[in-house]
Amino acid sequence: MHMNARSADLEVGFDVPALPGMREDEIQTPCLIVDLDALEGNIRKMGDYAKAHGMRHRAHGKMHKSVDILKLQQSLGGACGVCCQKVSEAEVFARAGITDILVSNQVRDPGKIDRLARLPLHGARIIVCLDDVANVADLSAAAQRHGTQLDCFVEIDCGAGRCGVKTAPEVVAIAQAVAAAPNLRFAGLQAYQGAMQHIDGYEERRAKLDAAIAQVREAVAALNREGLEPELVSGGGTGSYYFEAGSGVYNELQCGSYAFMDADYGRIRDRDGNRIDAGEWQNALFILTSVMSHAKADKAICDAGLKVQSVDSGLPFVFGRDDVKYIKCSDEHGVIDDPEGKLKVNDRLRLVPGHCDPTCNVHDWYVGVRNGRVETLWPVSARGKAY
Amino acid sequence: MHMNARSADLEVGFDVPALPGMREDEIQTPCLIVDLDALEGNIRKMGDYAKAHGMRHRAHGKMHKSVDILKLQQSLGGACGVCCQKVSEAEVFARAGITDILVSNQVRDPGKIDRLARLPLHGARIIVCLDDVANVADLSAAAQRHGTQLDCFVEIDCGAGRCGVKTAPEVVAIAQAVAAAPNLRFAGLQAYQGAMQHIDGYEERRAKLDAAIAQVREAVAALNREGLEPELVSGGGTGSYYFEAGSGVYNELQCGSYAFMDADYGRIRDRDGNRIDAGEWQNALFILTSVMSHAKADKAICDAGLKVQSVDSGLPFVFGRDDVKYIKCSDEHGVIDDPEGKLKVNDRLRLVPGHCDPTCNVHDWYVGVRNGRVETLWPVSARGKAY
Repeated sequence: MHMNARSADLEVGFDVPALPGMREDEIQTPCLIVDLDALEGNIRKMGDYAKAHGMRHRAHGKMHKSVDILKLQQSLGGACGVCCQKVSEAEVFARAGITDILVSNQVRDPGKIDRLARLPLHGARIIVCLDDVANVADLSAAAQRHGTQLDCFVEIDCGAGRCGVKTAPEVVAIAQAVAAAPNLRFAGLQAYQGAMQHIDGYEERRAKLDAAIAQVREAVAALNREGLEPELVSGGGTGSYYFEAGSGVYNELQCGSYAFMDADYGRIRDRDGNRIDAGEWQNALFILTSVMSHAKADKAICDAGLKVQSVDSGLPFVFGRDDVKYIKCSDEHGVIDDPEGKLKVNDRLRLVPGHCDPTCNVHDWYVGVRNGRVETLWPVSARGKAY
Repeated sequence: MHMNARSADLEVGFDVPALPGMREDEIQTPCLIVDLDALEGNIRKMGDYAKAHGMRHRAHGKMHKSVDILKLQQSLGGACGVCCQKVSEAEVFARAGITDILVSNQVRDPGKIDRLARLPLHGARIIVCLDDVANVADLSAAAQRHGTQLDCFVEIDCGAGRCGVKTAPEVVAIAQAVAAAPNLRFAGLQAYQGAMQHIDGYEERRAKLDAAIAQVREAVAALNREGLEPELVSGGGTGSYYFEAGSGVYNELQCGSYAFMDADYGRIRDRDGNRIDAGEWQNALFILTSVMSHAKADKAICDAGLKVQSVDSGLPFVFGRDDVKYIKCSDEHGVIDDPEGKLKVNDRLRLVPGHCDPTCNVHDWYVGVRNGRVETLWPVSARGKAY
């Protein structure tokens, strides 16, 4: 019997929610599905944009944590490499043969510095961020110990309010210390304005980015005066990349969420006032969920709760349906308001998650679908790699 | 060099955040650590309570998703088995040799029903919940196909507002259909009042449970009148178990969070008005985090963001410290308010997560510590098993 053979395979052989060739209605829910046509379209579009504007695109791998998707971003979208946030993520990408890896974060723990300094042995250029002169000696000592070179970005806090220094003299001081340290190389600036990416209005976002660009421009001028011209000035996200591309000072973008989209990004507006998921980008990532109880007439209970998504940026929306609404999320269940009783047990819905990054982070597999069939399974390669 | 050898092992050999024997300050952060003394103390205490009150304790495995911790709950705490929420979790526990497994949820998808009906072949008693007569024929057909028996609980919605039926006649109708179906056995009732567990006040919780107990008592009486005496009446959580144990109608508890505790449970009050993490239970689960930037004088940035915790029930608190406070969580970072500048880069903090279940769900490993050393690593065995 077809279903028996398939479901036996799922448990005994693979422990996955689907197998290539399955129909979408055979996929075991809840799980992440990726609309491959939409994903490839988004990747090609960002690649075309970066090429047309003379920008490098370093795809943000901390969003999808997937070697397979990163390789598509390189092959279809011309991405130059990856940025990620953790040494353990960089380890996954380096072992997979990615050759240009930025850890867009500080690395301070002695054990982590040691792991980082060994990564160029995989054949990758490794770049790390600094916001403290005190970090220089430790990085240099580790790179010398392993006979490697670490490229270094100075991180500017241009509005995110987390790591990074704020003033041009601080930037110059760290860059000089790096340039003078054995086995380190000053390679440029990290300047990602994370706090403005999700502001809905285009002009409000532009105003925040204008301030960030001014700050970066001043730092670049100060570095140039000291003979420390940055090779790369890197930043930009899905809510801002056109501002960095038009700045004349950035030369590398770090967009990640454009590839999948999510509910929180989807509601921001382009320059014409349209939601960016209504044309600029397509929703490519969904939580596939099933109705598994409808004991109350106006509420359907689905199998997608907190264990398959992060609700930090709000609840998911039901893709392509205005008649039902996801209204409550508990550990293992979602409550769907179904005022007209349209849903039945085993009906399936595609949910667009509130926030893609931490949602991908709870799944082991992306189930790639096209034309109603499972085409591929990709592991979430760097899932759980936070250390 | 000691650190080199260790960190090389971490990357090349194991891909884990720690190894047994390491000092706590060598653990690669952020990761989950378990205070083994506290965990064992909690497990013994709940076991003693259940034994003293003549209750079975079916430990809720969907909290920790760990075969190793479940086995401790059986060996040290006398737990009779496990309950979990998903077929894929039950598959993990059945393969690990657990012999009494309740899926405290509805199973409706044909593929999932087939997988469920094969699980008794592992040698386990498998119990599943129903809230719809229409589910009976599908479960029975699958069990007949595989030559197995599925035990069945009727689920009562006694306040959680998700799955389950509300009235005694509905309970009886489903139980009768189960009792008449080949290869199914009516085994009792699932009646977990989830919505009251986190109400802070003891008397408010008692009032909610009193209503639930009355509802369950009525259902049991109606079943007894039909000759369908339930073998098991199962429910109860960390915020209510003493009410179910004293009810005279429940005979099985389903507590889970007591083993680890979290910030949200910790602030509820016992009958004397004390926080339950101040004596009733000990905090045994922590996110170990390191300060990795302190570029602003009054704010430390730590490495524990959304990728290592769920903030659905609020932010974590810093264990054992009143002088610093975790105030903001982004994808990869936490902002720690440090008004007196007490923290330095590489200082470590233990965070008590807001909500343990979905926090455990993002990690691959529990790092078990005792007396400042790593004693064991346990995989989060059923992590990612949501389908």
